[in-house]
Amino acid sequence: MPLVRIDSTGTPPELLDRLGLAVHEALVEAIGIPADDHFQVLTGGASRVVADTGYLGIRRDSGAVMIQVVLRGGRTVEQKKAFYAAVAEKAAAIGVEPRNILITLIENDLADWSFGDGIAQYVQ
Amino acid sequence: MPLVRIDSTGTPPELLDRLGLAVHEALVEAIGIPADDHFQVLTGGASRVVADTGYLGIRRDSGAVMIQVVLRGGRTVEQKKAFYAAVAEKAAAIGVEPRNILITLIENDLADWSFGDGIAQYVQ
Amino acid sequence: MPLVRIDSTGTPPELLDRLGLAVHEALVEAIGIPADDHFQVLTGGASRVVADTGYLGIRRDSGAVMIQVVLRGGRTVEQKKAFYAAVAEKAAAIGVEPRNILITLIENDLADWSFGDGIAQYVQ
Repeated sequence: MPLVRIDSTGTPPELLDRLGLAVHEALVEAIGIPADDHFQVLTGGASRVVADTGYLGIRRDSGAVMIQVVLRGGRTVEQKKAFYAAVAEKAAAIGVEPRNILITLIENDLADWSFGDGIAQYVQ
Repeated sequence: MPLVRIDSTGTPPELLDRLGLAVHEALVEAIGIPADDHFQVLTGGASRVVADTGYLGIRRDSGAVMIQVVLRGGRTVEQKKAFYAAVAEKAAAIGVEPRNILITLIENDLADWSFGDGIAQYVQ
Repeated sequence: MPLVRIDSTGTPPELLDRLGLAVHEALVEAIGIPADDHFQVLTGGASRVVADTGYLGIRRDSGAVMIQVVLRGGRTVEQKKAFYAAVAEKAAAIGVEPRNILITLIENDLADWSFGDGIAQYVQ
């Protein structure tokens, strides 16, 4: 179910695909999403990505990656923390710096999803 | 009010416009949005759209279309179901396969909207 | 913290940057965001932006700009109103018509943010 949106600039298509897969695997491992529930919009050529969070003591290079995940409410803080940590680990493994990865979650409800055929699959 | 965001790859501009209009008409019919409250960001050339929801038994071709709607809270489950069904019907009528249409809703509040001129029109 | 997403068509890069900065300054002044907490995805070339809110009596030219801000819950209606007004004023100062500026807010929680390194900085 989660809808993942990744925005970055100047990311080659192959790396973008691998990054999408890393985020998907992190959702499967940390939040228990089914392995074949893979649902993403990937953008490698946003006009501009700004990521200055200097007030937190985090300095980045120019390769900031914004990851936004929409998912139904109900996951615990511990699950969310495990997800962030898993994304960082898997991103590092494919050469994307964990300090460059920013993640935002947005929660909604079961009735807020239709996966095709005009049906609300979770509230039939 | 609803803000509709449609992301797809390789969709010709004319079809994208017709799809945007189909979603708008579905909002008008199923949720009672005014006909001239039409508010959309359409993207035909996302770098990549992934839509594998095999665990629900839905198989797609390569033309997945992601529709995200931000709207104020308060709509019933029945209104949401009617909206999904209306989108599927209207998409089919213009040649877009209903199995390729994924919809996600995100709810917010009346104070969360400004439609121009720096004013919060719903909470003046 | 707020994640700002600006979508527009045909906006030159320099103007898009100035608009992003205007929104950031409005967040700092009206909502108290730290000046170096600047976190944006800017798109100048969306396939299409539709903004017909005629039912509110607002007429636009073709240059509609959609601004979406994801931020933690808890800001007052007055803060939100001040933010909208500040964006309009700062946009006008760089030549963007306030009637063309549409803003949508989406709220989430402190645990819904990771600003790098796989850590949930707000709930450690």
